Amino acid sequence: MGAPDDSDCSLAKAVELVGERWTFFVLNEALLGASRFSEFRSRLGIASDVLAARLSKLVDSGLLTRQEYREPGQRPRDCYRLTDSGRRLSVVLCALQQWGDEHFPDIASNVAYRTADGRAVSVRFVDDEGVVTPVDEVCSERS
Amino acid sequence: MGAPDDSDCSLAKAVELVGERWTFFVLNEALLGASRFSEFRSRLGIASDVLAARLSKLVDSGLLTRQEYREPGQRPRDCYRLTDSGRRLSVVLCALQQWGDEHFPDIASNVAYRTADGRAVSVRFVDDEGVVTPVDEVCSERS
Repeated sequence: MGAPDDSDCSLAKAVELVGERWTFFVLNEALLGASRFSEFRSRLGIASDVLAARLSKLVDSGLLTRQEYREPGQRPRDCYRLTDSGRRLSVVLCALQQWGDEHFPDIASNVAYRTADGRAVSVRFVDDEGVVTPVDEVCSERS
Repeated sequence: MGAPDDSDCSLAKAVELVGERWTFFVLNEALLGASRFSEFRSRLGIASDVLAARLSKLVDSGLLTRQEYREPGQRPRDCYRLTDSGRRLSVVLCALQQWGDEHFPDIASNVAYRTADGRAVSVRFVDDEGVVTPVDEVCSERS
């Protein structure tokens, strides 16, 4: 499959890295605290080979780190933690969920995004002075 | 391929609809003003059958409308316009591009998001009072 003509732009690079359904779900579970292979597998119901491929790609791309841990009497296993860059994808995941909430009003979201002191946050366009700008007042243009 | 255990949540539904690389690029071009099949095809360098399938899915899902137009001496052709719901995906696309800008600092973005009077906007977490909240102060939890 080819790439769009702007394949060297940052949107295209981001989509190449994370624009795949299982990758979104793996990152979402990592944000929710999953770190072990078995946690990802059981929470997502994903085939082991698919999960292993997605985790390896995310490690190679600098979104997750892989560390070894060992429980008493067990063989060493790997666990996966978000890097700072991986954690910043929470903005993308929250924006997608928010859009899903609007587009499918009968379907609940299952993740809440909050400040450390428990207040709800959402994802919005803001202008250069930090003022929220309604989405229908935003235009995009090729720069 | 299976679906995650939370396959009835709004994130999963959103990912099923738009979490595919060509779909992101098609929506991005629609936001930038593309409306004709030939415009999408030439801007993206996408195979016609892939483009037709993506456009039809986006029409069926209520993100694009399909309308007929006819130029003098030509056969009727279809053009595609974003619905309000499709247009609201600009938040997701801007968030993805922004993340790409941070993760790939040497690569330029090719789309600028602006207010109607030309001021730059970005995508941020904001709290319930409209105050910008840094991404590293936001937690997600299953609700």
